[in-house]
Amino acid sequence: MQAEGGVLSWRTEPAVALQPGQVRVRVKAAGINRADLLQKAGHYPPPPGTTDILGLECAGEVIETAGQTRWRVGDRVCALLAGGGMADEVVVDARHLLPVPRDMAWEDAAAIPEVFSTAWLNVFELGAAQPGEKVLIHAGASGVGTAAIQLCKAFGNPCWVSLGSQEKLETCQALGAEGGVLRHDGIATLKDFGPFNVALDPVGANYAPEHLDLLAQDGRWVLIGLMGGRNAELDLAKVLVKRLQLTGSTLRTRSADFKAGLLARMEEKLWPLFESGQLKPLVARTYTFDQAEEAFAELARDQVVGKIVLVNN
Amino acid sequence: MQAEGGVLSWRTEPAVALQPGQVRVRVKAAGINRADLLQKAGHYPPPPGTTDILGLECAGEVIETAGQTRWRVGDRVCALLAGGGMADEVVVDARHLLPVPRDMAWEDAAAIPEVFSTAWLNVFELGAAQPGEKVLIHAGASGVGTAAIQLCKAFGNPCWVSLGSQEKLETCQALGAEGGVLRHDGIATLKDFGPFNVALDPVGANYAPEHLDLLAQDGRWVLIGLMGGRNAELDLAKVLVKRLQLTGSTLRTRSADFKAGLLARMEEKLWPLFESGQLKPLVARTYTFDQAEEAFAELARDQVVGKIVLVNN
Repeated sequence: MQAEGGVLSWRTEPAVALQPGQVRVRVKAAGINRADLLQKAGHYPPPPGTTDILGLECAGEVIETAGQTRWRVGDRVCALLAGGGMADEVVVDARHLLPVPRDMAWEDAAAIPEVFSTAWLNVFELGAAQPGEKVLIHAGASGVGTAAIQLCKAFGNPCWVSLGSQEKLETCQALGAEGGVLRHDGIATLKDFGPFNVALDPVGANYAPEHLDLLAQDGRWVLIGLMGGRNAELDLAKVLVKRLQLTGSTLRTRSADFKAGLLARMEEKLWPLFESGQLKPLVARTYTFDQAEEAFAELARDQVVGKIVLVNN
Repeated sequence: MQAEGGVLSWRTEPAVALQPGQVRVRVKAAGINRADLLQKAGHYPPPPGTTDILGLECAGEVIETAGQTRWRVGDRVCALLAGGGMADEVVVDARHLLPVPRDMAWEDAAAIPEVFSTAWLNVFELGAAQPGEKVLIHAGASGVGTAAIQLCKAFGNPCWVSLGSQEKLETCQALGAEGGVLRHDGIATLKDFGPFNVALDPVGANYAPEHLDLLAQDGRWVLIGLMGGRNAELDLAKVLVKRLQLTGSTLRTRSADFKAGLLARMEEKLWPLFESGQLKPLVARTYTFDQAEEAFAELARDQVVGKIVLVNN
């Protein structure tokens, strides 16, 4: 599936031959992410060398392998992709696949790779959250937000959220968030719950001055999006005296080796928790591939909690 | 030595009893740092629980120990202090002392702890400079700057500087800097030498927008001062797309354990290089304790390259 002039359409491409270390996967389901909406709108061109076919994650069945890999034809896998997931087949670096956790449905497995990678990388690796430290999660009801809440609960980090409605807040609290604030009330009252050791921030400029006040000494502020604009005014005296750390983080443009290492660490730390049911991808709604326009519009309306997934049936 | 109403003066205090793990040092020489100037001017009160006696580093002789420590009476040591170095005696956490490198004069040893700790911590630990990566050092002719240049040379990092005069630039190049720019020309032309993987920045707001352009993908910008103001405008889109990291760093307010760990790592990595002469504290001028006002004024004039040290004779 491609986006041309802001409209989704299907095209047929000849299958490419596998390189050693690659795997061909028959796609059963593909998660939609905000980055797909941006790409559809023409604001987020794929990185150089990456297909323009949409889709940053999928789940499916291995149908071909090349060279030495851990995978066999018939294995059920989910994939972290730089693109290409919304298709019948996708060719993937074998290291960018992980096994579908036992008995999990395709549409759930397809909702894991992008958001749990993003939450794990930014809260626990770059944000270096230590057990007991407080975490602030903006857009708490998003796919990344709901993944981050679950990870915080699993690893002993009390967390608070900002989001758009009371209903979303209740869902986030059921997932494990301690509490939170509604976006339209502003985020200054989060101070009552802080100070926070880690902030996961897809907002950017709008909240920037407040972050300097909400963060604790040695706090880590991980920027993963700019939904609230790009031009920020920062009081560097607060950055200095509190020894704050601001880190810009993107996943899609990382090297293949980086992604392979990240997934290997996630398999070690998170997969047992998916197997045991302690972590669960939160799928708000599924659509068929043919309903992709509706599915994209649903995500853009920003009313759901969790992920929207396309099913290839 | 204290600063009251902006004037330096001496006072007599009764000696305090040692706690286990502490060492009493007879001070032979004490380095002056910019933080002492700020404290003298009333802009940098000592952290809670810290003496108001000036002096963040010294060298001297162990005259008493308490509890289990590695030190014996008569040992020649240098000390990283949160205050109190400009005195006849100082009581120090035993872990905040390191041996004076073989044959080194007191005034040279007194010029090591603060600036080499600052340069090591911020360029190589927080800045995580890897061999071959490019480092940008502002105020290159300062005590911290001249230490950072030497460390970069020792660990295989080409470095460039910004500073105030052609004469200073030549001294920095003799120490190992590849090149640099004069402050009054602006720092934009540093782009010809970059992009930089690490920036050591005591300037802050004035250079902030340029840092976003000068830094490489995944670049680390370590803020250690605000000589150029505190209110910065930052384009967070550059922070995000380049995955930049901005870290505020202060040393004086760090915990005793943190400082102990830092000095232990420095003893392992840097002390062999001091012993071999590959690293050398750069002392621009020495004054006696009685000449402290002159010495402070000299540092404030910002005309020297390297450190100014007070000698207790």
